[in-house]
Amino acid sequence: MGTELFTVLPVSEARAELARHLPHELRKREQKPLLQCLGRRLARPVVARENVPGFARSTVDGYAVRAQDTFGASEGLPSLLTVTGEIRMGSAPRHGIGAGEAMRVATGGMLPPGADAVVMVEHTEQVGERNIEVGRPVGPGENVIGPDEDVKSGEEVFPANHLIRPQDLGYLAALGEVTIEVYAPLRVGIVSTGDEIVSPEEKPGSGQVRDVNSYTLYGQVLSLGGDAWLYGVAKDDPKLLEDKLNRAYRENDLVIVSGGSSVGTRDHTAQIIVELGEPGLIFHGLAVRPGKPTLGGVVGGKPVFGLPGHPAAAMISFDLLVAPLLRFGSYEKIKPGALPVRAVLSRSLASAPGREEYIRVKLRREQEKLYADPVLGKSGLLAPMVEADGLVRIPLESEGVTAGTEVDVYLFGTDYTL
Amino acid sequence: MGTELFTVLPVSEARAELARHLPHELRKREQKPLLQCLGRRLARPVVARENVPGFARSTVDGYAVRAQDTFGASEGLPSLLTVTGEIRMGSAPRHGIGAGEAMRVATGGMLPPGADAVVMVEHTEQVGERNIEVGRPVGPGENVIGPDEDVKSGEEVFPANHLIRPQDLGYLAALGEVTIEVYAPLRVGIVSTGDEIVSPEEKPGSGQVRDVNSYTLYGQVLSLGGDAWLYGVAKDDPKLLEDKLNRAYRENDLVIVSGGSSVGTRDHTAQIIVELGEPGLIFHGLAVRPGKPTLGGVVGGKPVFGLPGHPAAAMISFDLLVAPLLRFGSYEKIKPGALPVRAVLSRSLASAPGREEYIRVKLRREQEKLYADPVLGKSGLLAPMVEADGLVRIPLESEGVTAGTEVDVYLFGTDYTL
Repeated sequence: MGTELFTVLPVSEARAELARHLPHELRKREQKPLLQCLGRRLARPVVARENVPGFARSTVDGYAVRAQDTFGASEGLPSLLTVTGEIRMGSAPRHGIGAGEAMRVATGGMLPPGADAVVMVEHTEQVGERNIEVGRPVGPGENVIGPDEDVKSGEEVFPANHLIRPQDLGYLAALGEVTIEVYAPLRVGIVSTGDEIVSPEEKPGSGQVRDVNSYTLYGQVLSLGGDAWLYGVAKDDPKLLEDKLNRAYRENDLVIVSGGSSVGTRDHTAQIIVELGEPGLIFHGLAVRPGKPTLGGVVGGKPVFGLPGHPAAAMISFDLLVAPLLRFGSYEKIKPGALPVRAVLSRSLASAPGREEYIRVKLRREQEKLYADPVLGKSGLLAPMVEADGLVRIPLESEGVTAGTEVDVYLFGTDYTL
Repeated sequence: MGTELFTVLPVSEARAELARHLPHELRKREQKPLLQCLGRRLARPVVARENVPGFARSTVDGYAVRAQDTFGASEGLPSLLTVTGEIRMGSAPRHGIGAGEAMRVATGGMLPPGADAVVMVEHTEQVGERNIEVGRPVGPGENVIGPDEDVKSGEEVFPANHLIRPQDLGYLAALGEVTIEVYAPLRVGIVSTGDEIVSPEEKPGSGQVRDVNSYTLYGQVLSLGGDAWLYGVAKDDPKLLEDKLNRAYRENDLVIVSGGSSVGTRDHTAQIIVELGEPGLIFHGLAVRPGKPTLGGVVGGKPVFGLPGHPAAAMISFDLLVAPLLRFGSYEKIKPGALPVRAVLSRSLASAPGREEYIRVKLRREQEKLYADPVLGKSGLLAPMVEADGLVRIPLESEGVTAGTEVDVYLFGTDYTL
């Protein structure tokens, strides 16, 4: 039974222990049309199959020239060039240019053979029908993007597991990557438990509260590209939790039991994880505050977690244990994510050595400084959870941080790695 | 025709001019089940209809007591209390407690009438079958969340337009808000134009490049909760652009023509916006770099934009003009969003007074400092667009920022307001 093997592990050990029983990659791969890939992660590196733009391209409206023909040009002593034509957008020039010649080209137009620079139209003057005066010299390559200056064929443009943002959709489009191999969303089953918990549709009776964790965790899973399924609240009847957990286990890649707040509920959850199969429960506590009453297990290669009943604690445990699997497919492949930002801690925070602490903070701007105000409050309160902008970590062996220190803030909504 | 009325406006004026012709709110409202509301915005404030938790609730496992019965208690001289029962989770206690009495309660359990504090089980010792010794005093309210301590009935918990994050789903669940009135996504039609642009499925010929902007803008619209529809590339035939734009106008709440890079294409787009209806084109340039060749128009109360051909410029123009409409429904209701973060600029940036500049930066951590490295590159290059983590603004009248200065960085992915 759970409480007898009361194993409290630091986060790194908890991850390592779970990793021993998990596959190297939990996620499946799938081919998706580019437009469906926002927020997905690449299942393999993207290597450019051609040069971009693929031809020498003007970055301004002006005249394609041989740079050497403009050397020494000034407004007092302009270079006189003969305009031999105009380059049509989206077409190859019909002929090249020779010494003393120029062709009109618009922004994005292709340079003709012989040309190696573009003079901006503002630096030219029309002289008669066929000539221009250039009042300023251009160097070779000026106002031109070379054929492989944006992307070289064979170059790796994105590593595997890269998270696809709006600008990446455009970049992949430029490369002609219209079908992308991405990781499929992990399917996560969420079961709620605790005799005091009722579904949000219900009016709570005396001593009852509505289910918060299922909804918060649902949002967290979706935010990280997962596919979340709620299995509702299992209470009163121990058999009900067992049934829900069994079904969630069969139907999902990963299972979260969001615990009631009492020790009794937790013990019961631990027991069911043990009974679910091998290897079962791996640890029975995390050296983290808030988040200590976290259960971690693996059954037949699938992770099964018992998260704390307190919503703020459940969110932290999720970030530490579930998020890495959604983001990287395994604990072994965890990489640094979005950089934490820096802010001045506005009040001192004490911490007990021997456990990591995560403090919710709200950012505040005063003069030119960014401050992190700890959002404190009794454990179990919901309001601090929605007031905060991010998290500050106090490491395992630290005794705290004093006010006025610059600290790292992991901003909610950014792709951070804790 | 476009070029004759060449009106270049600063951003604030561009927004004000457009606002004169736009409705006060572009978005419709709709009722949605809570689980479909992640990333949506509230169409009205949420006001709590009841107290949360609704009863005095223990935050620890222990004994509900009258605080006064523990005054002066110490390990040497503990208070002796009679345990009159145990409180079942999720139920009202069957009776209250009187002087010298205690009831066993688990975390989250309801306090019995008469009790005003909870002694942690760690600070008690069982004495015989019916008594405990309390070795430490508790104050009134200690280890208890009061009935309205988390949320008071009648309190506004979220203002209108609040963006719903994972933790907010949980909070709304706690309040029993299972159907939420949110803003419906704005439907945005995206047309691409430019004789040099081909669809990403095509192999570009000489002088041609693939459509980047449609895809980047598609991602930007989706990221902000909009509903994006691509109308493909209109090129060569002027009539084709007119047809696509007409159709996009009829079928959407907002239309973006993502321009080719040349002046000719822009003029043509301007003309079509004028012909689409009243009031038509409002301005023909934005005092922003990159982003100057931006067209802003309104036709019959619908915004129609011509964004620059350069992808990085199109993204900035989108952030300045389209994003506020997606996020706030009108320019009049723009509010500060996520705070920019602070970082040390690693190289000096010059700027021309009279226009705002937006510089893409990559964040870098060195020692304890966060640096913002400008991602520079010729205009029209794609690579800088995907390398950057955020934007630094140089205001309209500034001549630049010197290296070593702390600057504000608007982080991509956060809900910032430019």
